[in-house]
Amino acid sequence: MPTHQTFMQEALREARKSLKEGGIPIGAVLVEDAKIISRGHNQLLQRGSTVLHGEMDCIENAGRLKGADYRRCTLYTTLSPCEMCSGMIILYKIPRVVIGENETLKGPEALLRENGVEVLNLDLPECRKLMGDYIKTNSKLWDEEMERVGY
Amino acid sequence: MPTHQTFMQEALREARKSLKEGGIPIGAVLVEDAKIISRGHNQLLQRGSTVLHGEMDCIENAGRLKGADYRRCTLYTTLSPCEMCSGMIILYKIPRVVIGENETLKGPEALLRENGVEVLNLDLPECRKLMGDYIKTNSKLWDEEMERVGY
Repeated sequence: MPTHQTFMQEALREARKSLKEGGIPIGAVLVEDAKIISRGHNQLLQRGSTVLHGEMDCIENAGRLKGADYRRCTLYTTLSPCEMCSGMIILYKIPRVVIGENETLKGPEALLRENGVEVLNLDLPECRKLMGDYIKTNSKLWDEEMERVGY
Repeated sequence: MPTHQTFMQEALREARKSLKEGGIPIGAVLVEDAKIISRGHNQLLQRGSTVLHGEMDCIENAGRLKGADYRRCTLYTTLSPCEMCSGMIILYKIPRVVIGENETLKGPEALLRENGVEVLNLDLPECRKLMGDYIKTNSKLWDEEMERVGY
């Protein structure tokens, strides 16, 4: 049986794929019944997308799932989901979100919980280091992104 | 000086464009300093997108705006924004949302207001009729979409 760690490694693989493409290293995978059914990563730099965060890209790539499917899924993401991604999780009633870390950024995890979403933070040094290193070497771009969302 | 009605007519134009393309008639425009800077419409059927609701498509089409720009914008949308779109509005701190109607669907308008967003509902019969007619003639598709979000 795969563990949370196994699936988070796949989300990390997506984050590293984004980095290789010249993008921000945040990745996500969607798991239904212990099987990965979709993958995605942040597309700000690759596609100029302000909407396709890692979680959103992953859900977009899943296509038109049934509600009954979302309701059996767990979303794994290397970084705590922002307000937009949390809203998407609440909209599609994805019951569980597993987070790599929430030190780089912390989204509205309380709102997720209030809406019945189980939130589990693995707090992995590997996830923190990936973002920490990225921000250090891409501070101007990161400052631009933080100004955009007013964090 | 253009009025809310003027800009809502442009959001309706987007909704009708979507309908002509065979899509769900929900549209949006983003207005900065009394000028339309982006437009969009629901892309569920055209692009198989579960992420590009009218509001999201509009923000996506705006590209990488600065935070300072979003903070001067008003988002016009023909239908009350869902949880995902509301999360996006909160993330980018768009200070005002003007809604065509919220009878067909009502998103978390209270959450928007709690987050400092001004929400104005024009409650236009034209917007209600467009969705009402669409749902009547596309009930199976609409049922699918409602099952997806669990409304």
